Amino acid sequence: MQTELSGKLGIEHAVFGFTPFPAVAAAISRAGGLGVLGAVRYTAPDDLKRDLDWLDAHADGRPYGLDVVMPAKKVEGVTEADVEEMIPQGHRQFVTDTLARYGVPELAEGEASGWRITGWMEQVARTQLDVAFDYPIRLLANALGSPPADVVRRAHDRDILVAALAGSARHARKHREAGIDIVVAQGYEAGGHTGEIATMVLTPEIVAAVDPLPVLAAGGIGSGPQVAAALSLGAQGVWLGSIWLTTTEADLHSPALVRKLLAAESGDTVRSRALTGKPARQLRTEWTDTWDDPAGPGTLPMPLQGLLVADAVSRIQKYEVEPLLGTPVGQIVGRMTRERSVQAVFDDLTRGFEEAVDRINRIAGRSGQ
Amino acid sequence: MQTELSGKLGIEHAVFGFTPFPAVAAAISRAGGLGVLGAVRYTAPDDLKRDLDWLDAHADGRPYGLDVVMPAKKVEGVTEADVEEMIPQGHRQFVTDTLARYGVPELAEGEASGWRITGWMEQVARTQLDVAFDYPIRLLANALGSPPADVVRRAHDRDILVAALAGSARHARKHREAGIDIVVAQGYEAGGHTGEIATMVLTPEIVAAVDPLPVLAAGGIGSGPQVAAALSLGAQGVWLGSIWLTTTEADLHSPALVRKLLAAESGDTVRSRALTGKPARQLRTEWTDTWDDPAGPGTLPMPLQGLLVADAVSRIQKYEVEPLLGTPVGQIVGRMTRERSVQAVFDDLTRGFEEAVDRINRIAGRSGQ
Repeated sequence: MQTELSGKLGIEHAVFGFTPFPAVAAAISRAGGLGVLGAVRYTAPDDLKRDLDWLDAHADGRPYGLDVVMPAKKVEGVTEADVEEMIPQGHRQFVTDTLARYGVPELAEGEASGWRITGWMEQVARTQLDVAFDYPIRLLANALGSPPADVVRRAHDRDILVAALAGSARHARKHREAGIDIVVAQGYEAGGHTGEIATMVLTPEIVAAVDPLPVLAAGGIGSGPQVAAALSLGAQGVWLGSIWLTTTEADLHSPALVRKLLAAESGDTVRSRALTGKPARQLRTEWTDTWDDPAGPGTLPMPLQGLLVADAVSRIQKYEVEPLLGTPVGQIVGRMTRERSVQAVFDDLTRGFEEAVDRINRIAGRSGQ
Repeated sequence: MQTELSGKLGIEHAVFGFTPFPAVAAAISRAGGLGVLGAVRYTAPDDLKRDLDWLDAHADGRPYGLDVVMPAKKVEGVTEADVEEMIPQGHRQFVTDTLARYGVPELAEGEASGWRITGWMEQVARTQLDVAFDYPIRLLANALGSPPADVVRRAHDRDILVAALAGSARHARKHREAGIDIVVAQGYEAGGHTGEIATMVLTPEIVAAVDPLPVLAAGGIGSGPQVAAALSLGAQGVWLGSIWLTTTEADLHSPALVRKLLAAESGDTVRSRALTGKPARQLRTEWTDTWDDPAGPGTLPMPLQGLLVADAVSRIQKYEVEPLLGTPVGQIVGRMTRERSVQAVFDDLTRGFEEAVDRINRIAGRSGQ
């Protein structure tokens, strides 16, 4: 699976793997793809430094990347405390009541929430970048909006390609104007923040909108035939996130959550504002149902919702409160039916891709070729 | 584009075109695909007979099919008048008030609504079949649920293949148990009734679920690369509906509606219950917004909603009340930017398909082949 873009990056397969786990990112790069470490959970620069040291040491010299969340709209001088104050008391009470109804234990005194809003704020993302630019990262991806111009310049000065996620052609054109190098077309069926337009429609639309910029297809891709389909649509590579969640290298810190992922079918996800205030696809749970219930108070806009539920989500995860336990994941969760190594996923992707190419050649009457 | 299924049907391209217009169906069959005439709008058997006569005379001996709507659940002896009585007065008033707000004129005295619920009722569908079985149709498709066993038998006695639409693997397995021959995997991005699962995920899932039955992919397909993508996913053909709406052979009886379709982007559709009571993708309009507004009375279940809005939809269409004017259509509406002949659409599909196959071979390193 070689495209112009994969050739430029010096990777064997045009497969880009987004993951919050350094061990998964390293394994993706070793397997011939490009492992992209999600930085959002690193609130302390030293933690990111430690994990980038590890990733760098275990990628066997293969290229890897970093994914940050840097909102396009800059809010100067706003602290987490300021944002906390904007949350209505009724919403806080709703969280308290919901957790009480399910008997979710409190975190221990002084125990930090694992899921913090701070990673979504620009100051934190900039601190992450100051750390990351000391490493030989080859790709910098921005998950929400176009990255600021100075960040694009700093990246380009270091020969780092800049990618940004888009859910519409309009969104993708804005990215191009911001000087980025790669657009990730994130379809409706993808895990995490998504728009309404499905990968089958979105990919060729964005390819046409930003031509000649390379496009990666994201959403609904977890098998070789799906890779072949995405590349048929004009993408120069695929961006996979969900599929790695149940690899043996991943560490979700929750056997119950892994069981839920392995059992879930493609119809068991929902696009909900429950986690961040913007629509993000995730496992459908009694927690998302509670937030999406018209009889409830409804969700708050980003970043309020994320801050409101941060402790609650940490408590649900830590104590594995099954009916409420979820995670961002795409519709391909239905084919995540057993734990496999990252290498096994790659073997499956490449074998399935070759079979799909054989198939399409037969259909095109080129079987003799 | 030859698959086992297209070979069996004796068509040149594995492209199945659903359309309410006999002239479009005939042109699809002449162009080497399989034209499938939608029967739902034929409330009078003689009208269907007249149009099947025309289609048969203009298909140049090529195979064609018929699509009926036969609900899986049988409701014995229920008449349209019985159903009318179940509609709450408040909902009727809401329709009256909404139409008045937009100044929509009344139909003339005795003028029939063009959009009737009756085509959705089993008695009507059976009458349609009595007519259709006198013609050499090669495919009988059922748009909602599995067709009844006796209908499948009658079709098979006449060497007619039976297809049914499915939005999930569970749904598809039920169809297989009903003895049908082909499953149409209808993805989220498709026009008309759809589920939540996107074509990229749904197609391989249904292919695996009903193997070895052939599967047609529907939803998000309107170009050659999208055909290549769908066939890469394991489909034995593609089922296209929306793309024909703006062909020169189509007759929407509304220049304003054609203009709206040509101007619409992929994000301008919505999955709404406004038309039939079940989620169906259509142009987003002030009419769908009114029904989807939480402040309104909400939609009624099928078949009540369809009956409730039948006259209103006819009036909106007849008088081309632009803000309310819509039609079922999928997300590919964004690439329907000019009127073309059916043959021009086929030329585009086949050329784009070949280019996508070239592309995927280059990526697979088989360009020398």
